[in-house]
Amino acid sequence: MSRSLILNAFLMSTGHHESSWRLPESDIHAGTDVRHYQHLAQLAEQAKFDAVFFADSPVVQAPAAQRPIGALDPVLLLTAIATVTEKIGLIATASTSYNEPFNLARNFATLDTISNGRAGWNVVTTAGDAAARNFSAAGQADSSGRYARADEFLQAAVRLWDSWEDDAVLGDKTNGIWADPAKVHPAGFKGEHLQVEGPLNVPRSPQGRPVIIQAGASEAGKDFAARWAEAIFAVHQSLPLAQAFYAETKARVASLGRNPEAVKILPGIVPIIGSTESEALALADELDELILPEYSLANLSHVLHADPADLHLDRKLPAGLEQLATSEKSTSRRDVVLNLGYGRDLTVREIIRELGSGRGHHTLVGTPEQIADHLEESFTQGAADGFNVMAPVLPSGLESFISHVTPLLRQRGLFREEYESDTLRGHYGLERPTSIFADAEEQRLAS
Amino acid sequence: MSRSLILNAFLMSTGHHESSWRLPESDIHAGTDVRHYQHLAQLAEQAKFDAVFFADSPVVQAPAAQRPIGALDPVLLLTAIATVTEKIGLIATASTSYNEPFNLARNFATLDTISNGRAGWNVVTTAGDAAARNFSAAGQADSSGRYARADEFLQAAVRLWDSWEDDAVLGDKTNGIWADPAKVHPAGFKGEHLQVEGPLNVPRSPQGRPVIIQAGASEAGKDFAARWAEAIFAVHQSLPLAQAFYAETKARVASLGRNPEAVKILPGIVPIIGSTESEALALADELDELILPEYSLANLSHVLHADPADLHLDRKLPAGLEQLATSEKSTSRRDVVLNLGYGRDLTVREIIRELGSGRGHHTLVGTPEQIADHLEESFTQGAADGFNVMAPVLPSGLESFISHVTPLLRQRGLFREEYESDTLRGHYGLERPTSIFADAEEQRLAS
Repeated sequence: MSRSLILNAFLMSTGHHESSWRLPESDIHAGTDVRHYQHLAQLAEQAKFDAVFFADSPVVQAPAAQRPIGALDPVLLLTAIATVTEKIGLIATASTSYNEPFNLARNFATLDTISNGRAGWNVVTTAGDAAARNFSAAGQADSSGRYARADEFLQAAVRLWDSWEDDAVLGDKTNGIWADPAKVHPAGFKGEHLQVEGPLNVPRSPQGRPVIIQAGASEAGKDFAARWAEAIFAVHQSLPLAQAFYAETKARVASLGRNPEAVKILPGIVPIIGSTESEALALADELDELILPEYSLANLSHVLHADPADLHLDRKLPAGLEQLATSEKSTSRRDVVLNLGYGRDLTVREIIRELGSGRGHHTLVGTPEQIADHLEESFTQGAADGFNVMAPVLPSGLESFISHVTPLLRQRGLFREEYESDTLRGHYGLERPTSIFADAEEQRLAS
Repeated sequence: MSRSLILNAFLMSTGHHESSWRLPESDIHAGTDVRHYQHLAQLAEQAKFDAVFFADSPVVQAPAAQRPIGALDPVLLLTAIATVTEKIGLIATASTSYNEPFNLARNFATLDTISNGRAGWNVVTTAGDAAARNFSAAGQADSSGRYARADEFLQAAVRLWDSWEDDAVLGDKTNGIWADPAKVHPAGFKGEHLQVEGPLNVPRSPQGRPVIIQAGASEAGKDFAARWAEAIFAVHQSLPLAQAFYAETKARVASLGRNPEAVKILPGIVPIIGSTESEALALADELDELILPEYSLANLSHVLHADPADLHLDRKLPAGLEQLATSEKSTSRRDVVLNLGYGRDLTVREIIRELGSGRGHHTLVGTPEQIADHLEESFTQGAADGFNVMAPVLPSGLESFISHVTPLLRQRGLFREEYESDTLRGHYGLERPTSIFADAEEQRLAS
């Protein structure tokens, strides 16, 4: 197989559809059940997925009552998953705005060490004043301030991960020299926002550094991704938009002197699978009918900064919404909504259904063949290097994808039969970085 | 059994003796080997220990080379241990100076949830400028500033842990109400150092709150412990000193209106065990002879703020050292050294040996009977509610304690035969706290 499609299982309590928890099959405590997640990760590993992935936000989005909240810290959750799996990658979201580089670099080095080289970090800057108020701040920094800190955060984290050279630990029992002091370096990072002396208190981890992932859709986010990301989680609504994003992103990466093939573009997809198309549509309907429209209408007006009275379930969006000021946090989400309303000409109820299944990610309702066709087209037509699979209901939606879609992808030669590597870098086809402090690397940087 | 002695296994790479890694049996990579720690925790659980415990410091103490450094984050490490054990408590050290209350409260709630109620937090304020320089600060806050923040940190953490009442999750699928909004409360903490709006993004964990542990020996540390601690890790060198500390601490707790029996006092002990006393002494000698005195001499002069030229291996300490200014960080350690030198009249070499085995904790060299006698005496004579067992070499020192000392303690009716509880609170005999936001509790606080 020349090029294997990447598949991540994006896990979230009872599934990505906002009504999934209301199905008879769903466990209302799934979000805090480590065994639920261990089981899902084992299923994904049996199917040779590249990784499992968890989103994260350090705040309860009001109202607390409507959907399951059970936000176990994802790095801890992945540590628990690491102990019952052997190959599958482990990607956690974590914020550069509300963590310290030393602590987060150490946590990912720990996860990488415990998992034998399977850690990935989805870097977010966490927009919104509500999150800031959980961290002794009255409000958030603006987008450029958040990304300036994020950039320094990554610089500091790289210096920490690299501060122990790979061969620093000697273990010379005879002479009593455990590590070679010449191979343990201060991180020595001095930025405007952050200063970190280092070294890290963990020897270099199996992958050297965790795989860096990013999902920002703003201009600052795209710049950051082009500079740092090794994989990008994208929101795609149509093939032409996805192709444009793919081409633009790879060009942006190349313009910085990086290899565009070393940055993987992974749109989210929500597969709603039936043995016939009408069976799939019936499942989608069952889920959509469990959405509480009043609640979703309130959410939608919040995202659009529109008056709730101006939104009617069975009408189209009123004109001119793109001109209303929105909070910075909502810009990307508003663009998704406007694209659904103005671009695809959906009613408010249809928009709510579309968002309900995957928060704006592309929902694919159909037979396994139809879904495999879509993935193949995106993968071979320059729109994706792989996908974040967002099952609408868990575990059943992941089981269904694994039983019916991955076999088709394999038959078509698009997806691996067996793991060919033991690390996330290996699965993604990424190189292991040399420490910036290693002699050869120092000479290269100096020349 | 009326009152059971508490036993924690304090785990540290190849053992607590600073030379342990140089023994032929020791694995130089033990400190980063999750299986090593899982194995040790399983041994301790088979022996019905109350808990395993990890110290922590977010800084590499220079020189990096002399001793194994492999400081996997202890909360992550305990998460990995939680997945292979069922009963034993899981205690991690974490700093209030270099973490955010929201993140740390969430991590301990996550560990408590994943482990089904076995989490404990050893609260430290982390002295020293070197640590501060890993967190964008030029130097540390002084002791009173650190403890003022720590006090606010605990207030905020309690409000976060309690922000979801125990019965907040309804899971009402029919009406689409997952949680009762009246039972999810803002944390609403506004201190001078810290402000946290909350609620936490995790429902209340099995123990309600992790068990709070403290080890500070300064006056500010003792006050903090009397206010917050449910267990206190102590450094004891002799029975009279231990009895005085025990009585003083329990009185301090009672003076704040707390039940002194709900605060457990747990001195550290370093058992060096032989089937005869001379066999035990031979093992102690083997370890002590692997200490590199030049390195230890440099460390000692640093702790004392003394000129290295004034310290001679085979002489007593020079007089007047108590009058030298020391860094605040070193005060407790200096007191330990002065007690060894002036109080017990040891030479510098003897002091170095004493510190080498357990950093000032009481080293007990002898037969299983001698060690059991000492523990029984401390436990029954008002000096301890239990012990932090610091094996000089791991795993062999823990295996030896389990094979030879715990059976004697059981024969004497001092230690449990079987677990009688599933949680750390249960093992320690501590009550599960009611949420401060629960109706009845609110009424009690208001009356």
